[in-house]
Amino acid sequence: MSTKPAIGFCGLGAMGMGMATHLVKQGHPVTGFDVYAPSLEKFCSAGGTRSTSLAASAADKAFYIVMVASSPQAQPALFGADGIVKALPQGATLILCSTVASSYARSVEREMRGVGRGDVFFIDAPVSGGAGRAADGTLSIMAGASAAALERGKWLLEEMSAPGKLFVVDGGIGAGSNMKMVHQILAAIQILAVSEAYGFAARLGLNGQDVFDKVVKSQGWSWMFENRSQRTLKEDYFPGASAVTIILKDAGIITYMSRSVNFPSKLCSVAEQVYFSALDRGWGANDDAGLVRLWTSNPVSSISSTETSDKESKLQLVVDLLTGIHLVSAAEAISLAHHVGIPLPQLYELACDAAGGSEMFKQAGGNMIEILEKKGDGTGSVLGGYTEKLKLAVDKAQEIKCPLFLGSAALNELLATGPELSLVKLLEAYRVAGGVQGEIEIQ
Amino acid sequence: MSTKPAIGFCGLGAMGMGMATHLVKQGHPVTGFDVYAPSLEKFCSAGGTRSTSLAASAADKAFYIVMVASSPQAQPALFGADGIVKALPQGATLILCSTVASSYARSVEREMRGVGRGDVFFIDAPVSGGAGRAADGTLSIMAGASAAALERGKWLLEEMSAPGKLFVVDGGIGAGSNMKMVHQILAAIQILAVSEAYGFAARLGLNGQDVFDKVVKSQGWSWMFENRSQRTLKEDYFPGASAVTIILKDAGIITYMSRSVNFPSKLCSVAEQVYFSALDRGWGANDDAGLVRLWTSNPVSSISSTETSDKESKLQLVVDLLTGIHLVSAAEAISLAHHVGIPLPQLYELACDAAGGSEMFKQAGGNMIEILEKKGDGTGSVLGGYTEKLKLAVDKAQEIKCPLFLGSAALNELLATGPELSLVKLLEAYRVAGGVQGEIEIQ
Repeated sequence: MSTKPAIGFCGLGAMGMGMATHLVKQGHPVTGFDVYAPSLEKFCSAGGTRSTSLAASAADKAFYIVMVASSPQAQPALFGADGIVKALPQGATLILCSTVASSYARSVEREMRGVGRGDVFFIDAPVSGGAGRAADGTLSIMAGASAAALERGKWLLEEMSAPGKLFVVDGGIGAGSNMKMVHQILAAIQILAVSEAYGFAARLGLNGQDVFDKVVKSQGWSWMFENRSQRTLKEDYFPGASAVTIILKDAGIITYMSRSVNFPSKLCSVAEQVYFSALDRGWGANDDAGLVRLWTSNPVSSISSTETSDKESKLQLVVDLLTGIHLVSAAEAISLAHHVGIPLPQLYELACDAAGGSEMFKQAGGNMIEILEKKGDGTGSVLGGYTEKLKLAVDKAQEIKCPLFLGSAALNELLATGPELSLVKLLEAYRVAGGVQGEIEIQ
Repeated sequence: MSTKPAIGFCGLGAMGMGMATHLVKQGHPVTGFDVYAPSLEKFCSAGGTRSTSLAASAADKAFYIVMVASSPQAQPALFGADGIVKALPQGATLILCSTVASSYARSVEREMRGVGRGDVFFIDAPVSGGAGRAADGTLSIMAGASAAALERGKWLLEEMSAPGKLFVVDGGIGAGSNMKMVHQILAAIQILAVSEAYGFAARLGLNGQDVFDKVVKSQGWSWMFENRSQRTLKEDYFPGASAVTIILKDAGIITYMSRSVNFPSKLCSVAEQVYFSALDRGWGANDDAGLVRLWTSNPVSSISSTETSDKESKLQLVVDLLTGIHLVSAAEAISLAHHVGIPLPQLYELACDAAGGSEMFKQAGGNMIEILEKKGDGTGSVLGGYTEKLKLAVDKAQEIKCPLFLGSAALNELLATGPELSLVKLLEAYRVAGGVQGEIEIQ
């Protein structure tokens, strides 16, 4: 029998299943709970122990991980009559890995004290990296908690994350969720950008595989593009791996939070409206890679690229579209982080390599942070080239009557920097300097 | 027989038919040409003379009016082998009333000189006001031309326009079209706003007629709202009176022109992308009031409003949505006018009462112009109230998963004004101060 500590685990979806089975592989006795019976079956086949009661999954577990989809799912699981909190043993460590508003994470801490479970060590620890890295135990994890709780739970967070990818964010409970939200602004924008790029390309007559091959080696690269393309190219949307409703939930948390602190989350709002449109079409449960169907009903990999010199210049337009969007999304995320007081270098370290990563974030993000932290004056960071290239893409899209929701909005942000076309001006449009600094708070 | 001068007229669509029959009623012998035979029939029944050849319609006409839909239609009509320019008598006056890019109007003048018709007096005179005012001879007309041409053609422009609604714009050929384009940025945004408002209202469970009654007496009033509602409430979209392709053409001219002078036409770009989406659904030839179908497939007048105190607060959210959009659209149009050097007081006088008019343009436009002309410091013009109200509308829309393309973008512009929430900051976001001043030029 294993000598490693037993772990309780609630929420065996795409991410949770990977995380829980990874812990099984590492030699932990893991007891899993999920409302969906086939997931429990699958978890058993992978060596886990099933539990059909939340209380039973938590009884006698010194460590418990919650990885459900949202706070409305977490709340009854944690605090229901037959819930986790009541059943945990004295002094247990409870880790909430779901993406939730930071205010929700803080409310969990309060409510545990309120129900007499102030003895539980609680960690707010959302993750990033996708199902593959979850299963490999190489996630990025953003953790906020008391020093005592971190001391107890850190080994377990390390077990699930890649070396150097456990980010302990200062600020206690809520700080991890804040960091995750800022990261998700990149994800929410870039997920739609994948479909907008493939949709534009399809209407230009470009083959999906050609687009993939070009983009992944270009300045237009993003983690999301590389990841989602696997499903886009196979039309693997039913259900695929990540439903539209999942990223819409995150986008909703971000824009609601942004409004509450008077921050203009411009591109993220654009993405959110398009996600709503996808819901209206009945695509909520489909993979978000299927948003490309807003542009084309043909499989993108079935299109035969025109075999002329034209093809290369058209592919370049797609790269320029993505590059422009990613540049502005980097400014938006970093500005929001600054606005709400998240450590910018830590965000940079985290996001370059996580699901919100992009070549433009890597290239320009450091410079943006220097400007915001007044370490650089932004001299030499002129956006003229990116603006002119994005303009050509938007011109072409207009010519072929192809909507570019993000591309046109990103271009307007670049144009609004005025004749200077500088990073400084781009960041000023997000008003970080004069912004209301404040803690992220949502009820 | 009439002693009034004979007039040739090309383009008997919704607007042209009204203008031409009005001239007939005023006692002019009018010879009309159109490629669509039923329009010629209709024109004959109204007392006009039909012509099945462009050349014949122009022969011996000292005055000729062109009111086709676009420059691609105007070009062959004017310069084709059997076209108007070749057939006009010596020293004729030619008035182009179509909405075209100013650069196209200038190219017509050049080309006439090039083909040896420098003797023709040419006037660039786009109109606004809708089919009803066209038929009543009470249009608003924006005219640019040489003094000599205006001297000859002014009486005819006055015949078609309301008293005080003939605006002679300084700058010669192209100036009228520039003014019209700036006006159309209001129209292009506000047409989508009508559908967004009715769509939001439908999802809130509000009856269309209730919405109409509330909005037309409120700060959310716009000319477009009052005008388009007549068709929205009857689902009169097939074909209705103004096709999506018409406003999309104007939006396209505006955003292309804006990109070429580095001006961020933010809300207009949002509207353009949604118009593209409507084309994708096959709605191009339908009335633009039918865009509400992006939100609801039920007739908005069939919805039974909830009869509770709730109803009034929901109606107020719809008013606040429109108010916020119209406020930002006013800033966008006035900033563009300033950017390209159009006389702002003339724009104000024109637009308050034309198809781009709105209560917010009237209320805030004058103040914005004072700020841009450095006559006022914008003190006291604080947007806080509008921002907070629009925020509540966007919060509610998010809750019911209703896309607000314009509402969310307008809110972000207001939020981006920072803690000052002032008109000055709103205008600065359009970078007029540091903008590249330049003539509008499109090829």
